[in-house]
Amino acid sequence: MNEILKAWEKLKSVTMRAFTGKVARDLPAPDAEHIKEQIAECVYSTGGEISSRTRAVELGKIYLELSTNGKYNFMRLLAHEYGVDHKKIDACIESYQTASNEEKRIEAEMALMHELIPPRVKLLKMFNALPNGFKFLIDFRAELMPIRKSDPKLKKLEEDLRRILSSWFDIGLLDLEEITWHSPASMLEKLIQYEAVHEIRSWADLKNRLDSDRLCYAFFHNKIPDEPLIFVEIAMLNRLADNIGTLLDQSALTINPQEADTAIFYSISNAQKGLAGINLGNFLIKRVVSELANTFKNLKHFATLSPVPRFRKWLKEALASEEESLLTEQEKEKLKRISTSHNTSIGLLALLNSDWSGDPEKVQELKPILMRLCAYYLTEIKRKKKAYDPVANFHLSNGARLEQINWLADISKKGLIQSAGIMVNYYYKLPEIEKNHELYVTESKINISKDIKKWLN
Amino acid sequence: MNEILKAWEKLKSVTMRAFTGKVARDLPAPDAEHIKEQIAECVYSTGGEISSRTRAVELGKIYLELSTNGKYNFMRLLAHEYGVDHKKIDACIESYQTASNEEKRIEAEMALMHELIPPRVKLLKMFNALPNGFKFLIDFRAELMPIRKSDPKLKKLEEDLRRILSSWFDIGLLDLEEITWHSPASMLEKLIQYEAVHEIRSWADLKNRLDSDRLCYAFFHNKIPDEPLIFVEIAMLNRLADNIGTLLDQSALTINPQEADTAIFYSISNAQKGLAGINLGNFLIKRVVSELANTFKNLKHFATLSPVPRFRKWLKEALASEEESLLTEQEKEKLKRISTSHNTSIGLLALLNSDWSGDPEKVQELKPILMRLCAYYLTEIKRKKKAYDPVANFHLSNGARLEQINWLADISKKGLIQSAGIMVNYYYKLPEIEKNHELYVTESKINISKDIKKWLN
Amino acid sequence: MNEILKAWEKLKSVTMRAFTGKVARDLPAPDAEHIKEQIAECVYSTGGEISSRTRAVELGKIYLELSTNGKYNFMRLLAHEYGVDHKKIDACIESYQTASNEEKRIEAEMALMHELIPPRVKLLKMFNALPNGFKFLIDFRAELMPIRKSDPKLKKLEEDLRRILSSWFDIGLLDLEEITWHSPASMLEKLIQYEAVHEIRSWADLKNRLDSDRLCYAFFHNKIPDEPLIFVEIAMLNRLADNIGTLLDQSALTINPQEADTAIFYSISNAQKGLAGINLGNFLIKRVVSELANTFKNLKHFATLSPVPRFRKWLKEALASEEESLLTEQEKEKLKRISTSHNTSIGLLALLNSDWSGDPEKVQELKPILMRLCAYYLTEIKRKKKAYDPVANFHLSNGARLEQINWLADISKKGLIQSAGIMVNYYYKLPEIEKNHELYVTESKINISKDIKKWLN
Amino acid sequence: MNEILKAWEKLKSVTMRAFTGKVARDLPAPDAEHIKEQIAECVYSTGGEISSRTRAVELGKIYLELSTNGKYNFMRLLAHEYGVDHKKIDACIESYQTASNEEKRIEAEMALMHELIPPRVKLLKMFNALPNGFKFLIDFRAELMPIRKSDPKLKKLEEDLRRILSSWFDIGLLDLEEITWHSPASMLEKLIQYEAVHEIRSWADLKNRLDSDRLCYAFFHNKIPDEPLIFVEIAMLNRLADNIGTLLDQSALTINPQEADTAIFYSISNAQKGLAGINLGNFLIKRVVSELANTFKNLKHFATLSPVPRFRKWLKEALASEEESLLTEQEKEKLKRISTSHNTSIGLLALLNSDWSGDPEKVQELKPILMRLCAYYLTEIKRKKKAYDPVANFHLSNGARLEQINWLADISKKGLIQSAGIMVNYYYKLPEIEKNHELYVTESKINISKDIKKWLN
Repeated sequence: MNEILKAWEKLKSVTMRAFTGKVARDLPAPDAEHIKEQIAECVYSTGGEISSRTRAVELGKIYLELSTNGKYNFMRLLAHEYGVDHKKIDACIESYQTASNEEKRIEAEMALMHELIPPRVKLLKMFNALPNGFKFLIDFRAELMPIRKSDPKLKKLEEDLRRILSSWFDIGLLDLEEITWHSPASMLEKLIQYEAVHEIRSWADLKNRLDSDRLCYAFFHNKIPDEPLIFVEIAMLNRLADNIGTLLDQSALTINPQEADTAIFYSISNAQKGLAGINLGNFLIKRVVSELANTFKNLKHFATLSPVPRFRKWLKEALASEEESLLTEQEKEKLKRISTSHNTSIGLLALLNSDWSGDPEKVQELKPILMRLCAYYLTEIKRKKKAYDPVANFHLSNGARLEQINWLADISKKGLIQSAGIMVNYYYKLPEIEKNHELYVTESKINISKDIKKWLN
Repeated sequence: MNEILKAWEKLKSVTMRAFTGKVARDLPAPDAEHIKEQIAECVYSTGGEISSRTRAVELGKIYLELSTNGKYNFMRLLAHEYGVDHKKIDACIESYQTASNEEKRIEAEMALMHELIPPRVKLLKMFNALPNGFKFLIDFRAELMPIRKSDPKLKKLEEDLRRILSSWFDIGLLDLEEITWHSPASMLEKLIQYEAVHEIRSWADLKNRLDSDRLCYAFFHNKIPDEPLIFVEIAMLNRLADNIGTLLDQSALTINPQEADTAIFYSISNAQKGLAGINLGNFLIKRVVSELANTFKNLKHFATLSPVPRFRKWLKEALASEEESLLTEQEKEKLKRISTSHNTSIGLLALLNSDWSGDPEKVQELKPILMRLCAYYLTEIKRKKKAYDPVANFHLSNGARLEQINWLADISKKGLIQSAGIMVNYYYKLPEIEKNHELYVTESKINISKDIKKWLN
Repeated sequence: MNEILKAWEKLKSVTMRAFTGKVARDLPAPDAEHIKEQIAECVYSTGGEISSRTRAVELGKIYLELSTNGKYNFMRLLAHEYGVDHKKIDACIESYQTASNEEKRIEAEMALMHELIPPRVKLLKMFNALPNGFKFLIDFRAELMPIRKSDPKLKKLEEDLRRILSSWFDIGLLDLEEITWHSPASMLEKLIQYEAVHEIRSWADLKNRLDSDRLCYAFFHNKIPDEPLIFVEIAMLNRLADNIGTLLDQSALTINPQEADTAIFYSISNAQKGLAGINLGNFLIKRVVSELANTFKNLKHFATLSPVPRFRKWLKEALASEEESLLTEQEKEKLKRISTSHNTSIGLLALLNSDWSGDPEKVQELKPILMRLCAYYLTEIKRKKKAYDPVANFHLSNGARLEQINWLADISKKGLIQSAGIMVNYYYKLPEIEKNHELYVTESKINISKDIKKWLN
Repeated sequence: MNEILKAWEKLKSVTMRAFTGKVARDLPAPDAEHIKEQIAECVYSTGGEISSRTRAVELGKIYLELSTNGKYNFMRLLAHEYGVDHKKIDACIESYQTASNEEKRIEAEMALMHELIPPRVKLLKMFNALPNGFKFLIDFRAELMPIRKSDPKLKKLEEDLRRILSSWFDIGLLDLEEITWHSPASMLEKLIQYEAVHEIRSWADLKNRLDSDRLCYAFFHNKIPDEPLIFVEIAMLNRLADNIGTLLDQSALTINPQEADTAIFYSISNAQKGLAGINLGNFLIKRVVSELANTFKNLKHFATLSPVPRFRKWLKEALASEEESLLTEQEKEKLKRISTSHNTSIGLLALLNSDWSGDPEKVQELKPILMRLCAYYLTEIKRKKKAYDPVANFHLSNGARLEQINWLADISKKGLIQSAGIMVNYYYKLPEIEKNHELYVTESKINISKDIKKWLN
C-alpha cells in the first residue's frame, strides 16, 4: 500500500515542487512570472480537474505566506491577467446583435455571459479546497478591500469575489445558532475579537453576556463552523433598556428569562470584513425575533439599544457650517451660561470636548439641547434620501420604529465621542415592520414615536 | 406573546391568502395571470426581502401542488416572463463599446453581466427557503429537463437553474460520507430507489452490499442531508472481479477487508437527475480511492467492474450497415454452424436475441467472436473523438486504463440485452491517471492493457 | 514507536497466548482446568488491575466461541468456584455478634457484606470491557436463565449478574429516545427481531409503524447505543382503537398527529431477555405519556390496545375443571345450537379450535359468551392476589384502569389461539394512576369501567 | 391537553406542597421530623415507584437549599434512621447457620445480603433523577467526608454512597475524551477550578496548556457530560522535561507534536472529591499512554514531571527527630559555611525557610545535599511498606520507574515549600510496567534508574 500512497502524494506535489519555496515573500516580478504558468494551468487547463485543484491549493498556500506587499502583487497579477477576453466578448456581442432568431439570440446571450466571467474565477473558486478554504476566500476579499479603489481592475477582482461569496453565503445556506457559555472556547474567543459595538473586556464579561438572561445568536456556514459570520447580543428584561452600563453590569442580578417581556438587541456585529456588502443583519434580526417569540412565551417587545455613531461628527459640521441657526435662542442662552465662549457653536463644541458628563450642572443644562438635536439629527438628516446615521438607516430599512432616545446612556469614551452619550431604542413591532420598511424605502418616511416627537417640538 | 406570534403568522400569510387555493392544478391562463403579480413582487420587489421570500415560499408550495401540465405552464411562465431586458442589454453594450477609459469599460462589463442575469433568478434562488428547498430546486430542474428542448426559452430557464445549482453544489460544499448499515433507514431506502446499474432487489440485498467487505460512499450536501447526490458501491476482494453475479451473491462468505488487495467499484449511480451535467462522479471516484488507500493498508489495486451499455446497440447498427465486413471469415464460419441463418449478420443478431447464454455450445462458439467485437468496440468506436460507450468514456476521461473484458460476467436480462453479458474492468493506477487523462482528452488515446490487445489480434 | 506498541500488544496478550485457541468448544474438564488459573488471576489477583482486565477480556472472548454445552460448563465453573468463603463469612458473623460497640458492629457488617459478594463478581464486572461488553453481560444472563433452576449455585450466579445489571441499568442511567424511520437500519432491524406482541412482517410493515401518525419510543443505555432495551409502539388516533388489524393496515390514511386526541400503546416489548426482572416497562409508559403530553397539545386520552394472552389457556382449564358451572343456562342453550357436542364445555372448546371467526353466525352467538367470560377472567381470576393475566397485571399495577374489551379485535392466528380474538384497552388517566396503583397493589382492587361492568352483569 | 398536563404536574407536587418551603435552612429537629415521613414513603413505600421518585427529587431539592449545618442534620437523619434492621439480620444469620441444604443456605445468603443493604440506599439511588443527579450524589459524599469520622453511622452512610458511586462510575461506564481549546468554555472553566498541581492562572495560561504540542485527557460519565472526573495534562517534547517553569512558559515556541519523542505527564488532578477512593488515575494514565502511542508515531518515552509533595515535611521531622545523623560530615561542613546556625539541622531548616533559591552560592551548595536527601527520601522512606510520598506511591504502584530528580525544577512558592524546588520524573516503560507493579506491590521493591542511584552513593 505504501507505494500507492506515495505515488499519490508524489502525483499531488510533483508540479509544485518545482516552484514552492522559491517564491520571495514580496513576490517580485521574476517570482510572479514564475507562478504565472501555475495559475495558467489551473485557469485554462485541459488537464484533469483534480490536478488543477491541487495546483490551486498550492497557489493558495503560497499566497498565505506572502507579505502584505506580496499579497498585493498576487492580487494585481490576478486582476491584470486572467481577465475577460475582449475579442471574444466582441464576437459574442456581434452574434447577439445579428442573431436571426430567438434560439440563436439566447445562445449568444449565454455565450456572452460565459465570456464576461473572467477565467480567474475558476481559480478563485478552487481555493475553497484549501484547509478552511471558505475562510480563505473571505479573508482574501477583506485584504483586497483597502486597495480596490486604486485600480479598476482590482475593483473588478473584488467584484468577482463578491459574486462568488454572495452565492456561497446565500442566506439559505446559513444556519442560525445560539451561542452559549457551552460553546467551544475557540469560538467564544472570536466573539471577543469581533465584537464591534461594546468591547468585551474579559472572559468574565463574556460569560456575563451569555448568562441565563442574556442571549447570543449568530449565522454560521457549515464549511467554517468555528467562525460566526454575524452575531447579535440580546438582554432579556422587563422594560426598555435605557443605559448600556447598567445592562452590561456583571454584578447585576439575573432574572428568569421566561418572565421577561422585552428583548433588547444591544449589539450586532459583522464578524467578517470579507463579507461586506452581503447583507445578513437584516435576516439575522428577523430570524432571531421569530426564534425568541417561539421560545419565550411572555415576550411582548423587541427593541434595540443602539449608539448614534455619527451624531457628534454631524453636529460638529453642522455647527461649523450653519453657524448658530441650528440652536434656538433659548438654547443659546443656556449655553452661554455654562460655556466660556461667546460663540455658542464653538462653546457647545468645546463643552462636548470637555469632561462635561461628570458635571451635574452641565449635564442638566445640556440634556434638552442635545436630546433635541439628536432627535432632529435622526429624523431630518438624510443622505441619498436615507438616514445619515448608519445605525439608524440599518434599523429603519429593516422596518423598525424610532422609539426612544436615552440621555447619559453610554458614558464610555467611545459613547461620548461618537454619540454624546446618547443611545437610541429602535422598536420592532411585528405587524408594522413591512409597512415601516416600505414607507422608509420608497418615501423616506420614518415611523416616529411620541417620545421622539416630544423632543422635536 | 400569542398575539405577537399571531401577528407574525398573519403577516407571513396575508398576501398569499388572496390567491392560495384558488389555483387550478393545471394552471390555466387566468390562474397563471393571477400568480404573475406575485412573482413580480418577488422578482422586482422594492418591498422587504423577508416578505419577498415569504411570497417565494408560497409560490413554491403552489408549484408542488400542480399537475404535470400545471408545472409546465408554470415553467413557461417563468421562461417567457421575467427574462432579461433587451433594451437594457443594448444600452450596456453601447456603454461598453463607447467606454472612454478602462474604468468605464469595466463598469459597463459589470452592468452588462448584471443585465444578462434574468430577474427570475432571484425567485429561483429564494426557493431554497422552502422546506427541503435545495431538493426542490434539483427536482424542479429534473422536471424541466424533458421539455427544455421544445422551446429556447425553456432551455434558458434550465440553464439559469444549472448555473445556480452548479454554484451551490460546488464540490467544495459537498461532504464525502460512508454509507453503512448503521445509516438512517430513510436514507438507505433511497439507495434502493436510486441504484441505476445493478438493481437492489430487497433490504437483504442492500444489507449484503453494506456488509463488512462491501463499502458505499456518497457525496452529500448539508442542506439535504438525507439525499445522497451520487454514490459508488465497492467490493473488497483479493482479485479482479470478473462476474457481477458472484460479487452480489448474498450467500458468499465475507472476507476481512483489511486483508483485501483489490477494491472493485462495481456501481456508480447519479442519484439526482436535476444535477445532470454537474460532474461529480469524477471527484467521487478519486476521493474514494484516496479514502480507501488511507484506510486499508493492503490495498494495491483499484478497478471497476462495469457494463458496456451500448455494445449491443452499436453491434446491431454496425451489422446492419457494414453488412458482414465486421466479422472475419473464421467467425462467419463459426456463426454459420451455430445459427440458422445464411446471412451471418442476421444470424448473429438472431442468436443474441435468443436464449444463447444457457446453451454451452453457443456460449463457447460466441465467446471469441463477441469478446473480439467488444474489445474492438471499446477501443475503436468513437463519437466526437471520445469513446462511444458512455461508461467507457466516463472512466477513460477520469484517467483509467482499459484493463480486462469478462465473458458471461452479467447474465441478468439487462446485462444480456445491453452488453451481451460482457463486463469490463477499468483500472485506476494512481501514478498514471493524469497521463491517461491527458492523452485521452487531448489525443483520444486509450491506455489499453495486454489482455485487451490479445482480443484485438 | 512501533517497538513500544509491539511491547504493549505483547504485554496484553502474553499470558493469553498460552491457552487461547487450545480450548475445545465444549470446554471439557481438562480445558476447564486450563482456564481456571486465568480466572483465578482475575479474581484474586495481586497483579495490576490492567492486566486482570486484559485477562478478563480474553476469557470473555473464549466464552463467546464456546458451544452451548461449553458455555454451560463455563457457567458451572464460575458458579462452583470463585464463590463466597464460608469460613470468612462465619468469622464475620462472629465479629458481628460479639461486637463490643457500635463502631465495631458496623465494621463487622461492612466486612460481612464484603464477604457475601462472591469473588467472581469482580470478573463478571470486568467483562464490561469486552467490545459491546454490556450486551455481553446481558446475553450471558439470558443464556444462563434456562439452566439456572437446575442448580442452586447457578441460581446464585444468575443473582450475582442480576445485581450487577440492576445497578448498571438503573433507570437513571438510561435514555428515552424516539425511534423513527430516520434511525439507523441496524437498529430498526432489531425492532423487527425483538417485537414480541404483533410480529413485524416486513420493512414496509415497519415503515408503516414509524409513519407520521405512529410513534415508537425505547430506553437505551449509552454503552450499547444500537440496542433498544425495551420499546413501545404508539398509534395517534381520534378514538379508542378497537382492532389491531385496522390499526396496522398499511394502506390506511395517515392523520395529522397534532390533531389526534388519543394515544394508543399497542405494543410493548422487552428486547433483552437478560434484563428479565429489571422492571423498565413501568417507567417507559409513564415517561412516554409525559413526553407525548408535552409534544401533542390536543392529546386527551392515553390507552393501550392489548392482548389477553392467557385467556384461552385459563378458559380451557376452567371448563375442564369446573365443568359447566362457568356458563349460564342461556349460554349453554346457545352453545348447543351452534356446537356439535352435547357437553357445552367440550362444545365450546371445539368451537374455539375450529375456524369460527369466519362464520358470521358463530361469531354472533359466541360474542356475548366470550366477552362475558373475558370480562370475568380479567376481573376475577387472580394468582397471588394479582390478575392472572400477565398483561392485565402489568398495566393494572402501573395504575391503569380496565376500560374496554373489543370483539374480533385480533383475528391473527396468535390472537385467536391466545386471546380468542379479544383485545383490551387499559386506560391511563393521569390523576388516578397513583390511586389505582395503590388500590391494586395493596388491596387487589381493580378500577373497572362501565363498559366492563356491562359485560359482567 | 392543558388539563392533563396540569393534573400530571399536580400529581407530582401534591404531597410535596405540604412541606416544601416550610423547612428551615438549618433543619432543626421539628423540621427533621417533618420530612422523616417523606423519606419513609420513598424508602419503605408500597406506593408506586414513580411517586417515590418524585418524592426523592423533592427531598434532594430541599437538601440543596439547606445550610451546612442543615445538611449535616439531614445526613445524620439518614445515617441514624433507615439503616439495617438487626432483628432481620439476626434471623437471616440463623437461617444461614441452620440451613439444611445448599439451596437453603444460598437463599439465606441472598436474604442476608439483602438485609445488609440499608433501606436508605433506595433513596440515595433515586437521587440520580435530580437534575444533574449524579453530580448531586458525588457532591453529597464530598460534603459528608469531613464529618464521617465523627460517628460510625455517618461512616456507614459514606460507605453506602461509596458502593453506589463505585458501581455507577465503574471504569467501563466512563469515556476517555480529549479536552481541547474547542471544548465548551463551561467545561474548560472547570479545569481552571479543579487543577490541583500547577494552578491555571488565566484563560491565556489554559489556552497555552491546550496548544498544539500540549494535550489534555479526562474521564467523563455520560450523565454529567460537562464534568471531568479526573484529568491529566501532557506536554509533547523531545527530551525529559526537567523544569515546570520552562514547560508552562506561554511564550515558548510550540513544536510539531508528530515529531516529539517524549510525552511528559506534568499534572494529574482528581476533579471530584466525592469520588475519593474510587481509583481512576491508574486507568487514566494507561489509557492515555495507549491513545498517544496510537496517535503519535514518533513517541518513544512516557514519563511524568511530578512534585515531591511531602519531602520538606518529612525532612523537617527527620531532622528534628534524628538530629544530625541524616547528614554526612561533608554535608554538615558545607551547611556550616552557608548557614548561620551551629546546629546543622536547624541551619538547614532555616536555610530552606529563607529565600535561598535566589542566592547562587546557596543554590550551588545545597544542591548535592538536597538531591541526595530527596533520592533517599523517595527510595527508603516507607509507610505501611509503601513509599511515604503519595505521588511516588501512586506512580510506583502503577508500575513506573523512578527515573530522575531535577534540581530547581519548580521554584514557585508551593514548589519550594513542599518539594524544596525538586521535581521527579517517573518513567512508564511499557514492557516493564507489570513487573514493576508486582515487585512494588508484593515486595515493596522500587525500580530505580542509574541517575537516582548516583545520588544515593
